[in-house]
Order: sequence, then C-alpha cells, then structure tokens
Amino acid sequence: MLYTESLGRLIKLFQKMPGVGQKSAQRLALYILQIPQPEAEKLAQAILELKDKTRYCSLCRNITETDPCPICADPGRDASLICVVEDPKGLLAIEKTKGYKGHYHVLMGNISPLDNIGPDEIRTRELLARVEQGGINEVIVATSPTIEGETTAMYISKLIKPTGVKVTRIACGLPMGGDLEFADEVTISKAMDGRLGI
Amino acid sequence: MLYTESLGRLIKLFQKMPGVGQKSAQRLALYILQIPQPEAEKLAQAILELKDKTRYCSLCRNITETDPCPICADPGRDASLICVVEDPKGLLAIEKTKGYKGHYHVLMGNISPLDNIGPDEIRTRELLARVEQGGINEVIVATSPTIEGETTAMYISKLIKPTGVKVTRIACGLPMGGDLEFADEVTISKAMDGRLGI
Repeated sequence: MLYTESLGRLIKLFQKMPGVGQKSAQRLALYILQIPQPEAEKLAQAILELKDKTRYCSLCRNITETDPCPICADPGRDASLICVVEDPKGLLAIEKTKGYKGHYHVLMGNISPLDNIGPDEIRTRELLARVEQGGINEVIVATSPTIEGETTAMYISKLIKPTGVKVTRIACGLPMGGDLEFADEVTISKAMDGRLGI
Repeated sequence: MLYTESLGRLIKLFQKMPGVGQKSAQRLALYILQIPQPEAEKLAQAILELKDKTRYCSLCRNITETDPCPICADPGRDASLICVVEDPKGLLAIEKTKGYKGHYHVLMGNISPLDNIGPDEIRTRELLARVEQGGINEVIVATSPTIEGETTAMYISKLIKPTGVKVTRIACGLPMGGDLEFADEVTISKAMDGRLGI
C-alpha cells in the first residue's frame, strides 16, 4: 500500500542486487521514475544487451564479446604465465594495474565446504588441463586472502605441483599507505613472513 | 578495452544513479551478467513498467498508479490537514511512521537560489490554491532542516499566513537514541528552543 505496485516490484528487484538495501533500492527506483523515458529505455536495453552479447571466454572464462577473449587472443601477452583469479572482478582489478601481461584463468568461485562448493564446482580441472597441455612456466594464484581463497590456493598448489610447473601466491602484507598501527595481527605476521631484501 | 562494449555501457548507465560510484556500478553490472536471463528480463521489464504505469497525483503530486492517489482518495484521512514535503521520499518516510492521517503536498524540490530554483519552480502556487479553496485547518511544513528546506519553510509560512490558516513546522531536536554528547551545537540549540512541558 505504501508503494504503487510497479514501484514496489522494481524496489524488490533492485534489493536483490549486491550491496543494495531497502533504502538504496527505493532511491534507485525513484531515480528511474524521475529520469526521462528514453533514458529508462536505454537502461532496460543495456541490461538485455549485456545478457545477449556477453559470453564467457572458453579458455579463461573472462567476460567477453568474442571467443577467445581479447586477452587470450592477444599475441603480445605472455601465454606461459597464468594468473588464477576467483571471478571476473579479480581479473578486472589486476588488469586495472596495467602491470600484468600474462594470461588468466577465472575459477568462478572459491572452494567453500560450508556452501557445498568443492574443487569440482569451480574450474580447477580446466586449469589442470591447460597446464598439462604444456607451454606454461608459472601459475600465479591471486585468489583473495580469505579463508576460502587461501583454501583454494592451497588446493591449486597441490594440484599443479606434480606437473612440475612453478606455482606462486600473490603477497600478503600491509596495504600501501596503510598505517602499521591500525593493521591487524594476521596481516602484520604475513607481512613479516613475506619480507624481502631491499 | 578493459570492459566489453555492452558491459561498459551498462556500467556507465548505472553510474548515473544516485549513490552509485564506479565500483558499485561494476558490481551491479557483473551481477546482471550472472543472473539467469529471465531475471534480467524481469528487471528490464520492471524499469519500463514503472515509467509506463506510474504517474504523479494531480492533487498532491504523490507517486501513484491512479489519479487522485490512494491517499487523496481515502475518505478515512483528514483532508483539513496538509503536510508539505519536498519530494516523494519525504512522503514515504512520513507514511512509514503510520502516525500521520492527513493529506500531503509534494513540492518537488526546495527553494535554492544557487541552483536557480525559486518559489515558482516548486509547487508553492498549487499549495496556495489548495489552501484558498478552503477546508484546510493546518499546513505542516515537513521540508528537511537544511538551508534550502528552512528557506522553503519560511517562504511557505509567509505565503499561507495571509489566508489565516495555521502553519506549523516539524520539530528539530535530538534524534531518538542519539547522545547529547555527539549532537552538534545547532541541533542542541534547536532542541532547547523547542522544549515542551512534560
């Protein structure tokens, strides 16, 4: 009764989006109400078009409109290097640094026994297959330093090691610009363990 | 190059929404990518339907699918009481308290000389017309206690007073559960000025 039917419906759909609560959903829906009709049509169109045009790369599972994706198809990138990330967000985060010039492998999740996600639910088998095809020098595991990400990293290390290919893990430590005083104990311990000669 | 064309387009459109920055927009767009096709269609449909079905009430300018809106049309509500709010969000906030049983008048903005919004850009003339039609006992001004909201309240008070109808302003003071220690000076002064007998 508080909202009209169509307003209530859109608010409910917006609320399903990650990080959008009841108040944000209401604000977003009222924004839609207030923009000109063509703008709303453009948004609805863009949502459908994204679903329609975007695929996952058959090699690395990156988001792409072409298959293989521009990264896998780029001859300028080092195909002997595979960076393993948990999802496309991780891949985008690393790409934004512009420092990495190898290939990727998107797992589409982390191992999480509590959520019934085992190694076979994420794309670990496909990773092993890529490594076994040869030509790979190093697998960099860049899953998040969470319990699930660490578990996944450990599993991948055990999975790949028998092939003789080097497996590395991105470093944990203090974030740049972070203050030692405010860092948690686990991060500081990791930073100490991971110290490098200067 | 970082995003596919369709992903980049949706991210840009999401970024136009209030309170949605670059990271949130990316997260929302990746959410769309990952939900099943029918869900995405439902969302696009809901956006178009909201624009299509929802109108503003010709009396109070509330959001509605029927004209006049359910509040204006409700014989159980007190038509001699008009609560003036700056936008539909304000109306929804008051309706959620379930304590107010009068009618509303949505201004669709506040007076803001810096943004070139004068009294005629918001619906003050329509308010005066409603009051002059008679049958109104009190106009409660519930614009936000910001500079613009206060300016608007002052203007409305001067506009309505000559008609002899009582004009009141919602109280300013400490929020419930708030700590006196952390309240700002202006709020405390307002709370002192607005003290009531107990």
